[in-house]
Amino acid sequence: MTVHPRLSMNQATIKHAPLDEALRLTREAGYESIGLWREPVQAVGLESAARRLADSGLRVSSLCRGGFFTLPEGSERRAALDENRRAIDETATLAAAGAPGSAAVLVLVAGGIPGGTTDLAGSRARVADALAELAPDAAAAGVTLAIEPLHPMYASDRAVVSTLKQALDLAEPFDAATVGVVVDTFHLWWDPEVFEQIARAGASGRIASYQVCDWATPLPADVLLARHYPGDGVIDFAEFTTAVESAGYTGDIEVELFNEAIWATPWPEVVARTASSFDAVVAPALSAVSA
Amino acid sequence: MTVHPRLSMNQATIKHAPLDEALRLTREAGYESIGLWREPVQAVGLESAARRLADSGLRVSSLCRGGFFTLPEGSERRAALDENRRAIDETATLAAAGAPGSAAVLVLVAGGIPGGTTDLAGSRARVADALAELAPDAAAAGVTLAIEPLHPMYASDRAVVSTLKQALDLAEPFDAATVGVVVDTFHLWWDPEVFEQIARAGASGRIASYQVCDWATPLPADVLLARHYPGDGVIDFAEFTTAVESAGYTGDIEVELFNEAIWATPWPEVVARTASSFDAVVAPALSAVSA
Repeated sequence: MTVHPRLSMNQATIKHAPLDEALRLTREAGYESIGLWREPVQAVGLESAARRLADSGLRVSSLCRGGFFTLPEGSERRAALDENRRAIDETATLAAAGAPGSAAVLVLVAGGIPGGTTDLAGSRARVADALAELAPDAAAAGVTLAIEPLHPMYASDRAVVSTLKQALDLAEPFDAATVGVVVDTFHLWWDPEVFEQIARAGASGRIASYQVCDWATPLPADVLLARHYPGDGVIDFAEFTTAVESAGYTGDIEVELFNEAIWATPWPEVVARTASSFDAVVAPALSAVSA
Repeated sequence: MTVHPRLSMNQATIKHAPLDEALRLTREAGYESIGLWREPVQAVGLESAARRLADSGLRVSSLCRGGFFTLPEGSERRAALDENRRAIDETATLAAAGAPGSAAVLVLVAGGIPGGTTDLAGSRARVADALAELAPDAAAAGVTLAIEPLHPMYASDRAVVSTLKQALDLAEPFDAATVGVVVDTFHLWWDPEVFEQIARAGASGRIASYQVCDWATPLPADVLLARHYPGDGVIDFAEFTTAVESAGYTGDIEVELFNEAIWATPWPEVVARTASSFDAVVAPALSAVSA
């Protein structure tokens, strides 16, 4: 089995594996990088997780996730912002413990429209407010806040940031090292302006993460679990990956799959299949130099 | 029961009602307008349907639907284009038979990515080609082809036209009387640029239809059946309707609901509930003059 040196196993793809197992499976399969999630990290404690990551020899490509800060002012909003500050600290600690080339990138999912309201515009404004409040903390910690635009089918209950253009508009007031964006094929493939916006993101140095997974229909009953291995759906990964390469992104590339059938598959199979699907449809578009 | 004079009952909302029943229920409830679908029209024959529409005294606000022309050149594409030509003729016949103020508007759903391919860009180009081919037929018949951008969650299997901006870009090469757009709240509510694009559509006289229904989560297992009565979800109908009014649209406003629970409700209840939900959240944003 070959594993492309830029491929990173996002931990959500083997969601039910505890941290130790995830690190071991990823490393033993030949990966150099892993994308971590807060919950399994917290399950063993941050210091212990950082030590285990260091022992694994893997890079960390991102930590998922902060955000969910669309509520109006009040104690719940304060709690959400404090939670983001903890996530910033965790990101810095893990990136320092990972192998050289690790990225101090915290993925942010904005949050949805507060229940019982139709306040989309206000929710979007509160995302901008939250970034302004958190940016100094991120800068002090050397962490990049990476705004992830989610597919518009999640706009009401999960992320009011729906396009790459919108994410870049939100990021623009801040230093590129402090606020960037996530480019995720599953969320963005349909957007007629996505390639133009990827070029814009590259020009301003704001691509903090590139994630690849595929879109296929029919969608499952729970649309959160609709992601497929690259190559199993309708996305043209050659075109997308070439655009991200041309925009100057040289970092790790994560495969993040939320999918019940994949979660029910033995982890070593998932790790192997992730690498082979990446090799088949993503790797050919990557320049030999960057590999 | 009051029925706003600009409210039109889209026939899909009472999907299982035959044409005669749909016309009778709509008229007796006090509506002035109905949006028709090709299948129930064809079930009684076009000439007969036109006569029944004339007898009802109702306006027709649109015919659903043409489109589905993303296939590459070949016999299937030719058949699809011929089917669209028949739909253009049906639209003209029905609009001539409807009460004064009827609209000769054919709603177009573009079609998805051809099976087994990742050819999104080619599919979109073929939509432009199809419009160029059909525009002379539509112009000759006095029919407006109304491109409907569908929610991006349908981009792979139903409509590669996903934003109002994209629909307007497709429409721009043609006379506004020949190629326009549908503004449907359900499909467009999430778009950060939608109000700017509604203004653009109004300025160029291209709003051929305004359709209102609501978005709520969780989505049903079949995401095609996710539409709700206005007011039952997250969409701000005052803001949306004001934008469409300000753009100069003065035509009928359809309520088109694909929803298993609504389809299972007795038709007179659906017709009444449609009118009351329209009165509650859409009508207040309409100017007294235009009513």
